[in-house]
Amino acid sequence: MGEGMTTKPQAFRGAFLDFVHDPFHWPEHESVRYVKDGVLVVDHRGIIQAFGPYVNIAPNVANLPITHYPHHLILPGFIDTHIHYPQTEMIAAYGEQLLAWLNQYTFPTEMKFQNKTYAQKIVGFFLDELLKNGTTTALVFAAVYPGSVDAFFEEAERRNLCMIAGKVMMDRHAPAMLCDTAESSYQETKALIEKWHKKGRLRYAVTPRFAATSTPEQLRLAGQLLQEFPDVYLHTHLSENLDEVAWIASLFPDSHGYLDVYDRAGLVTQRSIFAHGIHLTDAEFMRLSEAESAISFCPTSNLFLGSGLFKLEQAKSLEHPIKVGLGTDIGAGTSFSMLQTANEAYKVAQLRQQKLSSFRALFLATLGGARALNLGDRLGSFEVGKEADFVVLDPRSTPLMALRNGPDTPQTLTELADQTFALMMMGDDRAVGATYVLGNLAYQRDSLRHDSAQS
Amino acid sequence: MGEGMTTKPQAFRGAFLDFVHDPFHWPEHESVRYVKDGVLVVDHRGIIQAFGPYVNIAPNVANLPITHYPHHLILPGFIDTHIHYPQTEMIAAYGEQLLAWLNQYTFPTEMKFQNKTYAQKIVGFFLDELLKNGTTTALVFAAVYPGSVDAFFEEAERRNLCMIAGKVMMDRHAPAMLCDTAESSYQETKALIEKWHKKGRLRYAVTPRFAATSTPEQLRLAGQLLQEFPDVYLHTHLSENLDEVAWIASLFPDSHGYLDVYDRAGLVTQRSIFAHGIHLTDAEFMRLSEAESAISFCPTSNLFLGSGLFKLEQAKSLEHPIKVGLGTDIGAGTSFSMLQTANEAYKVAQLRQQKLSSFRALFLATLGGARALNLGDRLGSFEVGKEADFVVLDPRSTPLMALRNGPDTPQTLTELADQTFALMMMGDDRAVGATYVLGNLAYQRDSLRHDSAQS
Repeated sequence: MGEGMTTKPQAFRGAFLDFVHDPFHWPEHESVRYVKDGVLVVDHRGIIQAFGPYVNIAPNVANLPITHYPHHLILPGFIDTHIHYPQTEMIAAYGEQLLAWLNQYTFPTEMKFQNKTYAQKIVGFFLDELLKNGTTTALVFAAVYPGSVDAFFEEAERRNLCMIAGKVMMDRHAPAMLCDTAESSYQETKALIEKWHKKGRLRYAVTPRFAATSTPEQLRLAGQLLQEFPDVYLHTHLSENLDEVAWIASLFPDSHGYLDVYDRAGLVTQRSIFAHGIHLTDAEFMRLSEAESAISFCPTSNLFLGSGLFKLEQAKSLEHPIKVGLGTDIGAGTSFSMLQTANEAYKVAQLRQQKLSSFRALFLATLGGARALNLGDRLGSFEVGKEADFVVLDPRSTPLMALRNGPDTPQTLTELADQTFALMMMGDDRAVGATYVLGNLAYQRDSLRHDSAQS
Repeated sequence: MGEGMTTKPQAFRGAFLDFVHDPFHWPEHESVRYVKDGVLVVDHRGIIQAFGPYVNIAPNVANLPITHYPHHLILPGFIDTHIHYPQTEMIAAYGEQLLAWLNQYTFPTEMKFQNKTYAQKIVGFFLDELLKNGTTTALVFAAVYPGSVDAFFEEAERRNLCMIAGKVMMDRHAPAMLCDTAESSYQETKALIEKWHKKGRLRYAVTPRFAATSTPEQLRLAGQLLQEFPDVYLHTHLSENLDEVAWIASLFPDSHGYLDVYDRAGLVTQRSIFAHGIHLTDAEFMRLSEAESAISFCPTSNLFLGSGLFKLEQAKSLEHPIKVGLGTDIGAGTSFSMLQTANEAYKVAQLRQQKLSSFRALFLATLGGARALNLGDRLGSFEVGKEADFVVLDPRSTPLMALRNGPDTPQTLTELADQTFALMMMGDDRAVGATYVLGNLAYQRDSLRHDSAQS
């Protein structure tokens, strides 16, 4: 990691919020770490060297340049656990639910990504949008074309981002131009893994689109790739829509439900991330827990496509816990912002008579997402030794948010919970003052307060 | 109307969209009026004097100053049919559904509005927010204090806005400091009507909060006010939340349901606007249709409080049509933006396996809202003789929207439907380039393109 970095050691001062435990399973006040006036010290490689209250750390950083962000709140960079970069331009496609939406909008759009130059253009835009929204790591669907994966990883590498992506595997029920074959998908994926997996901060995900667009043979070969490469990921969709679930049942009459289709192919593993999981049975929830697989909860997408309401409390139960992260699911999702995603996660919970606190939502967007991607040892909090990807949030980024949150820095966790809740309900890309990748400024909002400059 | 206006006749040029029929009841292509290169001529009073294609109108406006908005889309000003101005500062209050939310957050906040100076401060902020979001008319809850109504109307009058508001009537089940009595609420409301109703563009709404916080006597006196003042409005809440519906049933054991409580008091009229109506029975839908009452559909609020999913298609049925407008319902709603409100209206429809086109949504936000408020003869479209309140929208107000919508002005209704759908799914206050009230610039976005200046 951090190859080519020439950053000098430096420090950042401000109010910091991260998590030391899972607030779904621990009391919130024991899970949240809030340092009202803290310092984060980042070494020349972009690794966190020290973190703590200013009064404790200041004597040790007298020689370092300090960037100070008063009136802001610094969090670990957001982690988006499910997103399709080729769908960036087709966000907000009207009027259909999942299967018709795929045929009418998605497939025609993804065909454009056979052209690598076009893919490069969209990748640049896409990564700009992620950073502008404070997202520093994502689990990304590319298109079916290997060149679309190369375009993505080349640019992510250039920006030194920790990104996970993969080529779509899809050998049926899609236009011919978008289909590979079981064998070609295996060969192409294998070559891409060898080229990109663990190159710097990059990681590869074996990426069958979903069970309906893969033959059993393609799914079997995907499982074989997981065997051959014991630390690549598996990224696919699961139980998003009732018509989809019924279709899978008809396509795989011998299986015991949707998840079982993947399970028989060896795809339900500790390295597997399944997007959606809205219509899972209790037995499927238990199986995902047992396998230590992860679910990506994508509320703006689930509402936009009318897919349904994810049972977050069941996934996060103490008895059968499942790793869960938040996903924007662009282009079925309607915003790149993880704050807006948290807004709609709250609404999904409310419709189910559940509560989703800001701390739980922000956990999902940071350490929870990191753990869902098995990156909890490297990302998602300000632990010493982790990589210094972080986002500087402005809880007063609009006049309305300034009125709602008042001028003061929260003094208690209760005040912080309230302010961060307003931030997640009202915040969007404007609430992101700056985004740092391995300690380097990767995005800064034009209007970031001048008093936040280097001191 | 328009007292004190000194505007000279002027013209506006650009792409215009309004409605000539209700697209829920007519084919969309016959309902939408799209003038790709149009001119709107506004006289010195702020009244629309002419409207049509540039080529037709241009010869007649050679002597007038013309403001040109290329790359924008000009719509009638948005109409917000349900909003609480004293709740502006408590937007995004965490964790409760309706009844607990009222007690925990709303009532303590509304107490502040006994102080008229404080009320004035919030009114100014509130009207700024409305205009910034392109909303030119709203049906507004003030607080229980008559001074809170004065503060509102004084500022609305100063800005020459067409606004409808009323003092909350509430004589039980609330803190004593927030309660009036049946008699005092009658007298205070009567005095406010005499002071403000039809003063310039202002209108009064008799405003019992909801049946649970009014004694039968207070409701009866509200009905008496509707009799005494045959053109004031009735504005209240109806069937928002299941616990609320059950509570009303227990409070009014002799009534035949929630709506019947209002009906017996003479409050179900052609001038009545009921917010929410999520849990209405079929008979109640029919009664509202028969009475020609209106419903305000408030999707961001309904999702935020977990109240439920409004049956829009039932309210807009051909057989028993009800007037419907959109409402933000700040502070239970999560955005002042009618575009964001339309975004979540679409999601509510999708969860119910229904579609909500951008034309239908924008109709609700403009002419539909005007008709819900019986202002369809004066507002909501660009008909000659109507008042020139309008909003200049930028379909490319963020880089993502620019990518999605492309550089071109739509040439067909199909292209326009697509572009406006993206606008309503992704747009927020940034998509509002300028807002005009009676032909006067009332808000302009800082970054409005320089090529949009007066020519």
